[in-house]
Amino acid sequence: MRNSKVVTLEEAVRRSGLKDGMTISFHHHFRGGDKVVNLVVDKLAEMGFKDLKLAASSLSDVHKPLIEHIKNGVITGISTSGLRGELADAISHGLLQEPVVFRSHGGRGSAIASGELKIDVAFLGASASDELGNACGVPRSENGKSICGSLGYALPDARYAKHVVVLTDDLVAYPNLPAGIRGADVESVVVVESVGDSSKISAGAIRDSKNPRDILLAKQAAKVVINSGYFQDGFSIQTGTGGASLAVVKYIREEMVRRGIKASFALGGITAHMVKLHEEGLIGKLIDVQSFDKVAAQSIATDPSHVEVSAVEYASGQHTGSATHALDIVILSALEVDTDFNVNVLVGSDGIIRGAIGGHQDTAADSALSIIVCPLLRGRIPCVVPHVTTLITPGKSVDVVVTEYGIAVNPGRPEIREKLEKAGLKLVDIKDLAAKATSIIGTPDPLPFGEKVVGVVMNRDGSVLDRIHCIKD
Amino acid sequence: MRNSKVVTLEEAVRRSGLKDGMTISFHHHFRGGDKVVNLVVDKLAEMGFKDLKLAASSLSDVHKPLIEHIKNGVITGISTSGLRGELADAISHGLLQEPVVFRSHGGRGSAIASGELKIDVAFLGASASDELGNACGVPRSENGKSICGSLGYALPDARYAKHVVVLTDDLVAYPNLPAGIRGADVESVVVVESVGDSSKISAGAIRDSKNPRDILLAKQAAKVVINSGYFQDGFSIQTGTGGASLAVVKYIREEMVRRGIKASFALGGITAHMVKLHEEGLIGKLIDVQSFDKVAAQSIATDPSHVEVSAVEYASGQHTGSATHALDIVILSALEVDTDFNVNVLVGSDGIIRGAIGGHQDTAADSALSIIVCPLLRGRIPCVVPHVTTLITPGKSVDVVVTEYGIAVNPGRPEIREKLEKAGLKLVDIKDLAAKATSIIGTPDPLPFGEKVVGVVMNRDGSVLDRIHCIKD
Repeated sequence: MRNSKVVTLEEAVRRSGLKDGMTISFHHHFRGGDKVVNLVVDKLAEMGFKDLKLAASSLSDVHKPLIEHIKNGVITGISTSGLRGELADAISHGLLQEPVVFRSHGGRGSAIASGELKIDVAFLGASASDELGNACGVPRSENGKSICGSLGYALPDARYAKHVVVLTDDLVAYPNLPAGIRGADVESVVVVESVGDSSKISAGAIRDSKNPRDILLAKQAAKVVINSGYFQDGFSIQTGTGGASLAVVKYIREEMVRRGIKASFALGGITAHMVKLHEEGLIGKLIDVQSFDKVAAQSIATDPSHVEVSAVEYASGQHTGSATHALDIVILSALEVDTDFNVNVLVGSDGIIRGAIGGHQDTAADSALSIIVCPLLRGRIPCVVPHVTTLITPGKSVDVVVTEYGIAVNPGRPEIREKLEKAGLKLVDIKDLAAKATSIIGTPDPLPFGEKVVGVVMNRDGSVLDRIHCIKD
Repeated sequence: MRNSKVVTLEEAVRRSGLKDGMTISFHHHFRGGDKVVNLVVDKLAEMGFKDLKLAASSLSDVHKPLIEHIKNGVITGISTSGLRGELADAISHGLLQEPVVFRSHGGRGSAIASGELKIDVAFLGASASDELGNACGVPRSENGKSICGSLGYALPDARYAKHVVVLTDDLVAYPNLPAGIRGADVESVVVVESVGDSSKISAGAIRDSKNPRDILLAKQAAKVVINSGYFQDGFSIQTGTGGASLAVVKYIREEMVRRGIKASFALGGITAHMVKLHEEGLIGKLIDVQSFDKVAAQSIATDPSHVEVSAVEYASGQHTGSATHALDIVILSALEVDTDFNVNVLVGSDGIIRGAIGGHQDTAADSALSIIVCPLLRGRIPCVVPHVTTLITPGKSVDVVVTEYGIAVNPGRPEIREKLEKAGLKLVDIKDLAAKATSIIGTPDPLPFGEKVVGVVMNRDGSVLDRIHCIKD
């Protein structure tokens, strides 16, 4: 191979022209199994870099080593879709001087495309890459070690970052095509021992539920879908990562088979459930920005009608070609929903960051019908509240809230209300749900927030939606 | 569908903000069957636009209506890979005030990516598009009317043009994915009666030869390939569009089977011959910037290992990820080659433009071994000459010239010379070939060039290689 780009990580960093104060970016397709963020930031710390801004598509428990790098001044700014675990806890308590900028997946894509979020050097983990930098989330040789499926969140970085470094644990001969990350956009390729532990891609937020309450919620949500008027041949659907919203798929499937209805596409985080329906012929195409489990990741490796799309193509509010513009139904979860239908999926009722915006804002805004599935209470924590702790998805984007105590329809969607009523579903006023929660557990004490702003929540259009204050112990 | 982009051509033009003096672009994947350039430029003339700069990936006979648009001041500048037919003749005689800018396919891709060639509005014909603008070169419904296969030359336009209009004769429901042109890059979709006549995509430059001299040349070229040292398991190859260079594939195939050698990929304009070898398992992948015939176009529609790449990914000299950097062997044709191994594929020996640079410069420069196949004479016209009429591919990129009077090896590649000698091939000095041509037909009269510069030939790095003067009758 002439003009080889394959170099060590240190050499790739040197070639990139990275300087103190610049922005580096990462994707989170390996979720809790990610090994790239820690590997690269450790190396950058060792090389003496300071004051770097970290633009991740999301961060989780596994990234707690960043705490030390923040303390040492290596990382001084973060933008991400979410934060979890010890890192989130430390940041909620004021670890970082600058507020973390939280963006939805579509919002991050838009911000990168418009230049609002400028990335100097993207470090993108890939399950296979050739020596020219054509890289993908599936292994392409018998030496492959990892799989994450779609690299959708990495694609805006690959296209728009000034300098792109691919890290891979499966270097193969050109042409590693088709591939989402194209060599023409890549400056260096670094071979590493492991880019991620694939056994953890479905850990964290995503789980199959056997919880009877989740199953009850799922059945109710399925009834909403089926009677909404949007459940017609050729409909499209996305489900979130909550146990209940995943279980909905099972009940919808039964009704699709019964009525002989097929979906044109399923969008978003693609799960094994969706792959199964697709393989049964019940869903035409899978439009995949993120493979939520190994079955989905393996499907995208081999099935041409299971298509990788970028975060921009998935959910940008500023690109009319994004898939969310064609989405009929989305089923989402929530940490809190309030009496104005505003939703919080980021900050716990204890004031500590413990979630991610994900595609919540994007899909709720663009879909024809958005359904939030959440219990009234989680243990002693109310989920339907007078006011959300943090505003993530504005209530005007939210159409229906499904709880185990009844279904609330946004007053802005009277035609949906009418359809669900006619189907005999138990509709309630969302204020009554909030009152019910209060009646059971009382009014919680106000949270001990401090003055310091530790997070800024962006709306997908680039405006500020809310600010997260530090929490005092 | 919400937010539909589907509008009339006139409305798409209005939305685009097109103004006099701006640059519009087109691809030539339908070659002689293209209907988009004439349709759009007719409409723009009707709408009163003047002084437009036309940036086409190439132009051919079918675009002769542009002559009137140039006379009327609608089109005042052209950049293209090539020109043929009456339009080329008129321009050679001085029709256009500004010189035509000729770029290679890789050079055009680079110029678009770097911003040297700024496109205001791209008008891109597609054999299928959904309402969000996801568009491709193959039909995707039973109503499909056209097929051209890869849209590789249109992809830089789609990505970098300020405004993108897709024209299609097969509008389908979202998601028309996978697709090379992505809706996120597209502003409008226009449904037209026909974007192109697919029966003509293999007309023009591409033909199967039964000419005994072509067959002799092909056999000799195959011997060069086989004995070059690059004919090893995993080699890669591209062939040009000349009859002889296509026929080479047949002879190489026989030797591949005999020796049990397989190619890792074939690049470039992909032909039915290459598809056949691929389907036989003799070629791993087809990397396709342009489908040279209907068989190739149909193959890319269904075969995941037949991959569409953009002109940048194909052959940019400024992107190290381009496929040409991994190319072992390229077989190319020539109108003229001179004693310094310089090649002309653009201007006839009568001084009239009658060809296209295509990927000639790009593949010759980047490949490990470039072989030019051309007869010593075409009728009374010498093909090996003391000096090329117009310099397209510098001699330092050209390794071997195969004629029916012997094989000349560039003195810069003594190791190739040695290998071919050892194989018993008849090697000659290129000066002797030129002398032989002169001895047969004499020294032609100098061409009656005028002062006016009608064309500028760019090298793929953006420098000027040569200028084409007008020809007097």
